[in-house]
Amino acid sequence: MKNKGLLIVLSGPSGAGKDTVIDRVISNDGSITRLISATTRAPRPSEINGIDYFFISKEEFCKNISAGKLLEYTKYCENYYGTLKDSVEKLRSEGKNVILKIEIDGARQIKEKCPDSLRIFILPPTMQELKNRLLKRGSEPYKNLKIRLNRAIEEIKFSLQYDYIVVNDNIDECAAAINSIINAEKFKPCRMKNIVNEVLNDEKNTDR
Amino acid sequence: MKNKGLLIVLSGPSGAGKDTVIDRVISNDGSITRLISATTRAPRPSEINGIDYFFISKEEFCKNISAGKLLEYTKYCENYYGTLKDSVEKLRSEGKNVILKIEIDGARQIKEKCPDSLRIFILPPTMQELKNRLLKRGSEPYKNLKIRLNRAIEEIKFSLQYDYIVVNDNIDECAAAINSIINAEKFKPCRMKNIVNEVLNDEKNTDR
Repeated sequence: MKNKGLLIVLSGPSGAGKDTVIDRVISNDGSITRLISATTRAPRPSEINGIDYFFISKEEFCKNISAGKLLEYTKYCENYYGTLKDSVEKLRSEGKNVILKIEIDGARQIKEKCPDSLRIFILPPTMQELKNRLLKRGSEPYKNLKIRLNRAIEEIKFSLQYDYIVVNDNIDECAAAINSIINAEKFKPCRMKNIVNEVLNDEKNTDR
Repeated sequence: MKNKGLLIVLSGPSGAGKDTVIDRVISNDGSITRLISATTRAPRPSEINGIDYFFISKEEFCKNISAGKLLEYTKYCENYYGTLKDSVEKLRSEGKNVILKIEIDGARQIKEKCPDSLRIFILPPTMQELKNRLLKRGSEPYKNLKIRLNRAIEEIKFSLQYDYIVVNDNIDECAAAINSIINAEKFKPCRMKNIVNEVLNDEKNTDR
């Protein structure tokens, strides 16, 4: 019997490099796939339904909320964003390890509904480096930068609630650490039960 | 502040390949060192005190037991074998990750005294393969083989109490899995606290 895939939840402050890290982690390990979120916002010209997001109507999204079909959701600028339970479960039942980038409140919602999810927090090496990275993006007015840095501090304080914390100083090392964490998870007793039983059953057929 | 090294406890039935696995795990990662046990038995001609064992007198061993200086111990053929707490703590305080091969009762004693120890169980791929390996050693009378296989079954049933279970079908894969497990351990929040605090303290000195 194949084991169910993992649900890996990745958080960290804006500028910690979550997207780059996720891309690298996936390219290091073919068993990992990125989860696609659902949203009620309109697709941008370059975005494709089922690849960038599942684009659904507000009506459908609210029906899903009422039916308890979301692992987590949030409302931002009049639009809903969330994670459909079915889309996660389908991938996991195929044995795929699903990775999902999400802020800390969403991670908390997921932990409640999926206690077996693996939560990893990406830490910047220093606050100065985080500031430099946000400034490099160049897309932020100075006021927003201050808001983001204050928000980052609150998030980092929360990092100790996660299962693992990895510093993103060097993308190779950070991704390798996350791949190690995901790999190690496969050897937890809850995921090795079938194999232990196979060995013990095999014993009954072994000529001693 | 440097983190204390890990205490890694490795168990598995006779013939699972524990020694070969430990040698490979150590050669893969220079931060890991093998722990030297203490014994009251006489050294064999090739054995060196402080390398193969700490050879100590029965009197000294019993004094250590009374003083609570042993993490675990056992008596076998009139001789004592055990793990001196001080020898483990010295290495761990230097930041070294200490690995120790031990049977399940010793592992249980260690878990009681060191709840933060990491316990890994090595599983043979099948009982038939375990039998083949024991037969290949050629040193066992048939009666002993049967005893060892029965003992193996009891030990394997206990494997689900460990933190991790790894199959030793292929030595490269088995050692790599254990190195992943040890590596992942470094990113647990209890070992990342100092780094999180450094980032948060750095923030106070960052011009925002």
